[in-house]
Amino acid sequence: MWLQREITLSPRPRGFHLVTDEVVQALPELGELKVGLAHLFIRHTSAALTLNENASPDVRRDFESWASEAVPEDAPYWTHTTEGSDDMPAHIKASLLGPSLSLPVADGRLALGTWQGIYLCEHRDSGGSRSLLATLWGEEAPD
Amino acid sequence: MWLQREITLSPRPRGFHLVTDEVVQALPELGELKVGLAHLFIRHTSAALTLNENASPDVRRDFESWASEAVPEDAPYWTHTTEGSDDMPAHIKASLLGPSLSLPVADGRLALGTWQGIYLCEHRDSGGSRSLLATLWGEEAPD
Amino acid sequence: MWLQREITLSPRPRGFHLVTDEVVQALPELGELKVGLAHLFIRHTSAALTLNENASPDVRRDFESWASEAVPEDAPYWTHTTEGSDDMPAHIKASLLGPSLSLPVADGRLALGTWQGIYLCEHRDSGGSRSLLATLWGEEAPD
Repeated sequence: MWLQREITLSPRPRGFHLVTDEVVQALPELGELKVGLAHLFIRHTSAALTLNENASPDVRRDFESWASEAVPEDAPYWTHTTEGSDDMPAHIKASLLGPSLSLPVADGRLALGTWQGIYLCEHRDSGGSRSLLATLWGEEAPD
Repeated sequence: MWLQREITLSPRPRGFHLVTDEVVQALPELGELKVGLAHLFIRHTSAALTLNENASPDVRRDFESWASEAVPEDAPYWTHTTEGSDDMPAHIKASLLGPSLSLPVADGRLALGTWQGIYLCEHRDSGGSRSLLATLWGEEAPD
Repeated sequence: MWLQREITLSPRPRGFHLVTDEVVQALPELGELKVGLAHLFIRHTSAALTLNENASPDVRRDFESWASEAVPEDAPYWTHTTEGSDDMPAHIKASLLGPSLSLPVADGRLALGTWQGIYLCEHRDSGGSRSLLATLWGEEAPD
C-alpha cells in the first residue's frame, strides 16, 4: 500500500504547536497498515517538524525561548535581512529541527512513545498556513 | 520483507554512547536484505539517536560538553522546571539531534561510512533503559 | 522498484552548497516513480545534508556564520583536537544538521516546496569529495 496526501495546517503564531490529532485525523488509512512507515514532510524553509513532549504547554514555550536565544535576530553577522529580522533565524531553526518526520506504524497506529507528540515549529512571526506532504507505505492488515 | 522489533537499550549515564553493535546484533534479519532501509526510532522525548565518529571516546565526551553549554541548565527562561534541572534541556537536545535514524541497507549490512557509528544520546542524568522500535523493509536477496 | 546508487560530490570549500541539480541528474530513475521516497545518505561524520532556501546565496553564507558562532573552534572544552581545530566542531555540526534526507517523490519528481533546495553542509576546511548513497523505492508509473 502507498498513499500520498497533502495536509494543510492552519496559520499559527510563531512558536511550537502540538498537531498530532490534526495529522492523524487526516490519515484514516493508517488503520489499514499492519506494519509500515508514515513520512511527514513540510514544504517550507522557515518552519519545521519535530517530536517532543505532548503534555505540558510550558515545554513548548521553553522551546521557543531557547530557539530565540540560540539563533538571535540581532546577530551582527546576518546579511540576508531584506525579508525581516525573523526570516534568516527562521531558516536556521528550520534546518536544526528538520523538515520531516519518519514515524513507524504498527497495527494501524503511529507507534509513538507515550509522551511523544508531533510539533509544528513555526519560526516566522506570520508564517501563514503550512503545507505538509504525508506519505504512507507498508504491509496491509488482512481484512 | 517487513520486520518490526523493539530493542531495549540498558540504562546509560548522561552522555553519548556508541550502540552500533548492540543494534546490529538485535537485527540478524538485516542479512536477508539485498537493498532496503533500517529505521531506528527512540520512543522518548529526552534522549535521541545520531550518527557520528565511531573511534575516539573523546569525540563523544566533547559532544556532551558542547550540548551542556549550548542548552544550559541554569538559563533564566526555563519555566518547565518541576522534573529537575536536566529535564527541559534534555527535551531541547532530543529534538536537535532527532528521534530517528534512517539507514540504507546494502547486501545484508548497514551501508554506513567507515567512521560512522550509532550514538544513543542520553540527556537525562538518570534516564533509565530506553526503548527503540526498529523497522526493516526492502528487497530480499535470493536464497 | 528499488534502486541504490552512490553519488560522488566533488570537493567544496567549507560552507553550505546547493546540490539539488547534481543529485537529481544522477537519479534519472526518479521519473519512473508514481509515488515513493528518495533517501539521501552522506557517509561521513564531518559533513551533512539539509534542505533550505534555494534562491539567495546570502542565506547559505549566513548559515556558515551562524554555525561557526554556535560551535566555536576555540571553545575551552574540546579534548578531541589532534585532527585540527575545525574537526570537532565539524562533528557536532554534522549531527545537528543530520546525515540524511528522506524526500517524497510524486509523479516522477522530488516533491519539494518551491523554495526548497538540497544543501551539502561541508564543515571541514578541506573535506575533499563526499560520498552519498541514494536509495529510491516506491510504486512505478504504468508504461
